[in-house]
Amino acid sequence: MERIKPRTLSGFMELLPQQQILFEKILATLRETYELYGFTPLDTPVIESSEILLAKGGGETEKQIYRFQKGDSDLSLRFDLTVPLAKYVALNYSQLSFPFKRYQIGKVYRGERAQRGRFREFYQADIDIIGDGALDISNEAEIPSIIYRAFTSLGLQRFKIRFNNRKLLNGFFELMGLKDSAAGIMHAIDKLDKIGAAKVREILVDDEGIAADAADEILAFISAEDKLGTLQRYAGRSEMFDEGASELRIVAEMMQRYGIPADHFEIDFTIARGLDYYTGTVYETMMLDHPEIGSICSGGRYDHLAEHYTDKVLPGVGISIGVTRLFYVLGEQGYLNDAMGAAPADVLILPMGDTLGESIELASTLRAAGIRTQINNEKKKFKAKIGYADKLHIPYVIFMGEDEAKAGIVTLKNLATGEQAGLSAEDAAKTILAGLNTTNTVIVEPKKD
Amino acid sequence: MERIKPRTLSGFMELLPQQQILFEKILATLRETYELYGFTPLDTPVIESSEILLAKGGGETEKQIYRFQKGDSDLSLRFDLTVPLAKYVALNYSQLSFPFKRYQIGKVYRGERAQRGRFREFYQADIDIIGDGALDISNEAEIPSIIYRAFTSLGLQRFKIRFNNRKLLNGFFELMGLKDSAAGIMHAIDKLDKIGAAKVREILVDDEGIAADAADEILAFISAEDKLGTLQRYAGRSEMFDEGASELRIVAEMMQRYGIPADHFEIDFTIARGLDYYTGTVYETMMLDHPEIGSICSGGRYDHLAEHYTDKVLPGVGISIGVTRLFYVLGEQGYLNDAMGAAPADVLILPMGDTLGESIELASTLRAAGIRTQINNEKKKFKAKIGYADKLHIPYVIFMGEDEAKAGIVTLKNLATGEQAGLSAEDAAKTILAGLNTTNTVIVEPKKD
Repeated sequence: MERIKPRTLSGFMELLPQQQILFEKILATLRETYELYGFTPLDTPVIESSEILLAKGGGETEKQIYRFQKGDSDLSLRFDLTVPLAKYVALNYSQLSFPFKRYQIGKVYRGERAQRGRFREFYQADIDIIGDGALDISNEAEIPSIIYRAFTSLGLQRFKIRFNNRKLLNGFFELMGLKDSAAGIMHAIDKLDKIGAAKVREILVDDEGIAADAADEILAFISAEDKLGTLQRYAGRSEMFDEGASELRIVAEMMQRYGIPADHFEIDFTIARGLDYYTGTVYETMMLDHPEIGSICSGGRYDHLAEHYTDKVLPGVGISIGVTRLFYVLGEQGYLNDAMGAAPADVLILPMGDTLGESIELASTLRAAGIRTQINNEKKKFKAKIGYADKLHIPYVIFMGEDEAKAGIVTLKNLATGEQAGLSAEDAAKTILAGLNTTNTVIVEPKKD
Repeated sequence: MERIKPRTLSGFMELLPQQQILFEKILATLRETYELYGFTPLDTPVIESSEILLAKGGGETEKQIYRFQKGDSDLSLRFDLTVPLAKYVALNYSQLSFPFKRYQIGKVYRGERAQRGRFREFYQADIDIIGDGALDISNEAEIPSIIYRAFTSLGLQRFKIRFNNRKLLNGFFELMGLKDSAAGIMHAIDKLDKIGAAKVREILVDDEGIAADAADEILAFISAEDKLGTLQRYAGRSEMFDEGASELRIVAEMMQRYGIPADHFEIDFTIARGLDYYTGTVYETMMLDHPEIGSICSGGRYDHLAEHYTDKVLPGVGISIGVTRLFYVLGEQGYLNDAMGAAPADVLILPMGDTLGESIELASTLRAAGIRTQINNEKKKFKAKIGYADKLHIPYVIFMGEDEAKAGIVTLKNLATGEQAGLSAEDAAKTILAGLNTTNTVIVEPKKD
């Protein structure tokens, strides 16, 4: 038979079992957190009509899109979860209740150039709150508080949510007399972290045609240490600026009330977010010990979610975690808790002799107690079976010999300690449950000195 | 602005929130069940190289495949989860532990003709056990026992797992002197349910060139009422037949030991499964009250999982649930438990006056108790907010007035009964938890007379 060398496409993450279990735990924690806040799950197709996905048109995304013909249909794979949400809300408007709070965790596709740590297929985990006509500003503080809880539930502590307000930036450009250059300036300052102030200044002056002193003032503004003083200095010169400043203050005050500790969020005037559709608060989230990674969770307030599909006014606020990239980064930086017991089972039962029947019965008892139980009845050497449990980090093994089966007991062995004891099925279940390490989190941060 | 009419492609299931919650509960129950048996989760890319996916070549599937170019790459969307599993095991052979027990729940793609109840994108939920060189027959009884548990956990009771053995069928054709026509005969009898005995006979005689009396004997064999008597009558004439008969008896005996009640499984000689790769036990699962739907869960034993990618001998046994179609069918037949409380939240907190801070604090207390909690701080009428909770079937509402906030109590209202009481936050949490309907299953079978 002709054989084909097995391979997985580059840019597509495919994990070994232990890593996959950690990844699943992350997804489960996100789902659980989002649901605790009353968000409803959503699932939309991976494939949509190109006309729908590209309704907004243009941009860098279009080049990266997976687009193809099938029969007469021009199809594309979704490149984010926001466009499908917009379509969904427009399509099902009359059947939804607003504010519509939904989460969606799913794969999206971007044909980026292959590069270490860049993925062409990756999970996004999004939450959004969509209003019908209006949406209260408190939602702009609740969204990052959910992210705070999600990350801390995963075990991540050393991160900071930075936020800004697009009205503030737009108002600032307006009062500077640079309203028409707003988009260009925003794109430039969005790159500040990556390319530095000097380069941004160069772009502003050379590419955007902004006067040198205005460019300096922009850079001084966005980098100001004294945020509140800066806001006051420019107050009263642009309605939009004042509105942005007011929203920024309200959101900052509410974030604390929503339970985000003061050292986990901060106003940052340099955050612009390249995307055109944000209209108010915008967020980024940085890992304190790895600023070079960039934002691990971003989003913001938008006022026109589905304007390409409906004339309904649907303002919203949302945030997105790029889970695949985050997982890759956590692994690279040694943040994944390999000791958390990413075993596929809690106990392995080994029938010895003609005890399959008793072994199955025991397995039922253990599973009824919530214990993940495998039976291994293969014709393999005893040592190979113990090796199997060891390699998979299964913490307990039960030997079911014929004598034990007759006596109604089992021999339970703790593979980590080597302890071994003859117990009733019920006591074995209790011992296993007590010994399982369930308190660990997926992420363990390296100790700081 | 030019608007595009929002739509979702036909053949792609996209659910409203309440239905989506039911669907998610099904997936969660499957995951939980598979994990109780020690299966490890796996996730493989939706896109693979066409060369890999089509290594086996040919067949009806190839016509249905979503295949396209991206740059220089010839890519395809996976059409099942078995081919990716074969690739995965061949690729990671040295790093896996055998028997490798994995489950995978994911979307697969087939460009079928659009038709009611047929989906182009659908979830499969697969479990497989892969051995390295050999695999004990007990696995062929464990796999259906997991399915039994999965379906009953969902609330489905009136189903039957039918099984057969490919060696038995092949051995029978051999002892009939029809070895070379085995594949053709198998395909024909696989259609028995759909087209009836007379048509199958016609195909056997006209298309497969089988003598009329032989065709009659085949039909008599597969339809025999007295299964064990029939096995005995043909015993001793083909080694393969005898082996198949022996395996069938062992698996039938073990199924009971694995906990499947006798009325939930039966031997059925008509089950052949069209796919060439099955080599031993084959399964189908029928809904007793809806045989017209066909099998809702199928699979079997195969001896050469990854032969297109590796020279390792990797026998396995697996079974697959087509979850999207099953969900559609359950909905059509009125089996979905709409009363199970598919609400996105357990309680809705309504701040009345300046009590957002207290409302958030209360929400934290409730969430810490595992209660899914929304706060609605929108500038909407009180009645509209109650209507929102009603429409979403959120069972409880809490009014947080300024007086109550000062007194440190909350007003909890049960929307179903109309009962209302002033309680401490802790008592409110207890009342809500006690009132939540958590015992219901997703599926409720119509009462039989």
